[in-house]
Order: sequence, then C-alpha cells, then structure tokens
Amino acid sequence: MKSAINTISLIGYGNVGSHLARHLRSAGIKTTHIYSRDLRSIEDAADELGAVAIDNFQDLPKNQLTLICVIDDAISKTIEQIDPQILIAYTSGSVELSALPKREHLGVFYPLQSFSKNQDLTITEIPFLIEATNEAFAQQLFDLASRLSTKVSYADSKQRKELHLAAVWVNNFTNHIVHIAEKYAAAKNLDFSLLQPLLKETIHKLDHLSAFAAQTGPARRGDAQIIDEQAMKLEGLEKEIYLLISKNIQNTYSTNEEL
Amino acid sequence: MKSAINTISLIGYGNVGSHLARHLRSAGIKTTHIYSRDLRSIEDAADELGAVAIDNFQDLPKNQLTLICVIDDAISKTIEQIDPQILIAYTSGSVELSALPKREHLGVFYPLQSFSKNQDLTITEIPFLIEATNEAFAQQLFDLASRLSTKVSYADSKQRKELHLAAVWVNNFTNHIVHIAEKYAAAKNLDFSLLQPLLKETIHKLDHLSAFAAQTGPARRGDAQIIDEQAMKLEGLEKEIYLLISKNIQNTYSTNEEL
Repeated sequence: MKSAINTISLIGYGNVGSHLARHLRSAGIKTTHIYSRDLRSIEDAADELGAVAIDNFQDLPKNQLTLICVIDDAISKTIEQIDPQILIAYTSGSVELSALPKREHLGVFYPLQSFSKNQDLTITEIPFLIEATNEAFAQQLFDLASRLSTKVSYADSKQRKELHLAAVWVNNFTNHIVHIAEKYAAAKNLDFSLLQPLLKETIHKLDHLSAFAAQTGPARRGDAQIIDEQAMKLEGLEKEIYLLISKNIQNTYSTNEEL
Repeated sequence: MKSAINTISLIGYGNVGSHLARHLRSAGIKTTHIYSRDLRSIEDAADELGAVAIDNFQDLPKNQLTLICVIDDAISKTIEQIDPQILIAYTSGSVELSALPKREHLGVFYPLQSFSKNQDLTITEIPFLIEATNEAFAQQLFDLASRLSTKVSYADSKQRKELHLAAVWVNNFTNHIVHIAEKYAAAKNLDFSLLQPLLKETIHKLDHLSAFAAQTGPARRGDAQIIDEQAMKLEGLEKEIYLLISKNIQNTYSTNEEL
C-alpha cells in the first residue's frame, strides 16, 4: 500500500493552482516546489507557500507527486518533459487520460468548480473527480482529495467529459443568459441591480426543487402573446435564442405528463 | 395629502397574495377582507390573517385599498366588478395600466420576485415597482411598499415590461438551462448534485463581477474542437440551443474590445 501524500510539486499557478495550493497547505500538504518558465512570475507564490521556485523540470523532486494545473492544451507537452518515474496528476475536466503520453503513474485530480482570483470557496463542498492509470495511485489521489473535500468520487474520462458538458450548461450558459439580460437592461437604461434578488432566488429555489418543477413564466404558461411581444423587442442571435428556449420550454411541458 | 394605508382588502391568495399579506401584517398593515368565489378555499387564510372571508365584490370596504393578486388574464375582469370609488392596485409585471378599465384610482404594486409556496423571502430586499393613474395615489402605494422593502421605485408600464423581459432571461431561461443540464445528467446516470456547488458559485460570482467578465468555458476560449465534440452529444432543439449560445458567446468576445 502506498503512503499518504504530504508534499507536492506544483506546475501552473493560475486560478486552479493557487486555490489548490492554499487549500492543500491548510490541510497539511506542503507545496515544496513550484515551476514556471518565468521565475519572477512565481516569486510571490513561492514566498507565500514556503516553496522553491524552479524553472527547470529536472529540478522536480523524484519522490513526490507533481500536480499540473495548466491549460488543457499545455498538459501533454508538460508531461512529456517530466521524468517518467515522477507521479503526475492533472486538474482538467475534459482531457482524457488516454489522450496523454503513456506513463505508469498518471492521474486526474479534477475539482468540479469555477475558480476565480480573490474569491474564496468552501473547499469541503467542492466535488473532486479522480481517475488514474493504476488503482493504487487512484487510491492515493482519492485520499489526497478527501483531505480537502467531503465530496470525492471516482469518474472515468467518459463520465468526466459528460459532467463537463453538463457544467457548460450550468455555468457557462446560465452566465451568458445573465449577460444577455445585463446588456438588454443597459440598452434600456434599466438598473440591473433590480434583478439581482430574482437571480439569487432563482438558484436558491433549486436547493429543494428540480428546475423542471421550478419553471415559471410566459413559455411555461404557453402565453404566446407575451412571447411574441417580447421576441419583437429583440434581434439577431438573441431573438433566435429567446424563441428557441421558449419553444423548448413549451415542448418540455406539453409533452410531459408529470405535472 | 392622502393618509397612510393601514388596512387592505385582498383578492387572490396564491403565491404573491399569501406572501404579501403575511409581510404586510408584519409591517402593521392588516388585511381585513379576503375575497374568493370559493369561500372554503380561503377559510384558513382568513383565520390566519384575522380577516373576513367574502365571496361578493359588494362586500369590499369602500374606504380602503383593494390589492389584486390574480393571474394576468383575470385582472381586467376583476376590476370591472369592483365599485368605482374603491382604490385598486394590482401586482403584475406585464399588464399595462392603459390596457385596463379606466378608473380614478388604479395602480401597480409589483414585487420583482418569483414567489414560491413554503419559501420565505427577505422582503426588504425585493424591488417594488410602482405606477398609478394619479400622483397622490402613486405616492401612497410607494409609501406602502416602503414599509416592506428598502428597494422601491417608480416605473411606468413600458419600463416594467422591459424589466419583465430581462426577468424572463434572468429567471425563466437560466432555470430552463439548468433543467437541460439536469435532464442530460439523468440520461447519462450522472449525479446532478455534483454540479450544485458550481451552480451556486456561478451566481455568487455575479455579486461582484459582471456576467461579461465572469464568462469562462470552451466558447469563451473559442475552443472549436470541444464545442463540436459536445454538440455531437446533443440532439434536436437542445443541440440548436447549445450551438446558438456558443456562437453568441464567441461573437460577444470577438467583437468586443473591452477585454
């Protein structure tokens, strides 16, 4: 049986890397080495973490996990440059294990959350999805994640991709829909802050209702007159989006007998 | 100058009516009469409020405000049956004052929120939008709303309609997008609760970021390969919605120089 992970090396100090390093430290897992091609860019981070800043992959310690928190496109190239005996995990939702250079110890340590600079998160609530090229290493990563969060599970690359697509709807698309509303409000000189309580309540409701049950509004009621009136106020792609979503809401409830 | 409103009559005890009556009572405004065609349906409500249950519009007191909280389509017919000297306000976002029977005292008392049974709301944070056929009555309604909420403003029927359209995006459409994600997760046997923290954080971020600034994801990065891969997993209207929103996100950032 493998021993617990108490130190790591870190590659990539963006939103994900910086959040994880801080939370790992709070859980007693020390980042001893932090890599960047540009040493100056990680000086402060190294200071804060008490880590050594390195700009050469040869300086990564051989006997500890290296956590890769770089953008999807850079993961494969980064892995290629790292000594094959080093254990590696990466934090991407959509890069498949099988798409990367083969190695004995390669794993996924994926926090299903949207991290932003300067915004603290309750790490214990963040789901971590774990996968690895071998079972013992997967178990080690699972144990590591369990020291941060109460919501750790195994997910293979296919499941992780499906969750990533669901996450695109839940995060990227809801956010863009809000952007369309913000833009419309600005164009009409409306104070968007009037809509903030509604936005919060929309999501708050989903704590105990399915979105299916929580649906309200003109499309839900099949109020064709208001749908037409509102669509007339829009143009271009946004009008198309308005009409398509309204149609999909109408279809959802006209073909569904659950209500 | 008109005196403050301390008692009201209520027509309609659905989500809006029941929430408002309780909050008005907490603010010292008593509902003395509550109307329904079916007296039994309001027995409990009348008991709770200490009000008289009536099933005849002739029994509405002449000297106090009647608040109409019925569905949009029923507002006009309800008003027609009420003695012309009675002050009336209604709670709809999209029904124009000018579309209703003319009377000296007719006003709008619109809480911009989505009310649900069994879910308490912080009434002080809910925006109230006020409009009336004359200024003194508008002022009375404004004062009444100010006893419930710190966010009261005047808005004419045109502005209220525009806010209602923005609210359709912010509430109805974000909710439906989440429904699509829930449905996809169910079809793929994914545990949707894994996505709940992401959903909360999506909206939490918008407390201090615009949705424009908060946007992330494949479309934001212009990652055509992931967009294609993900669209292939969808079909029908939902595939169309996926592609249209992705395209609109790409257009938003490629034509905008703010970043």
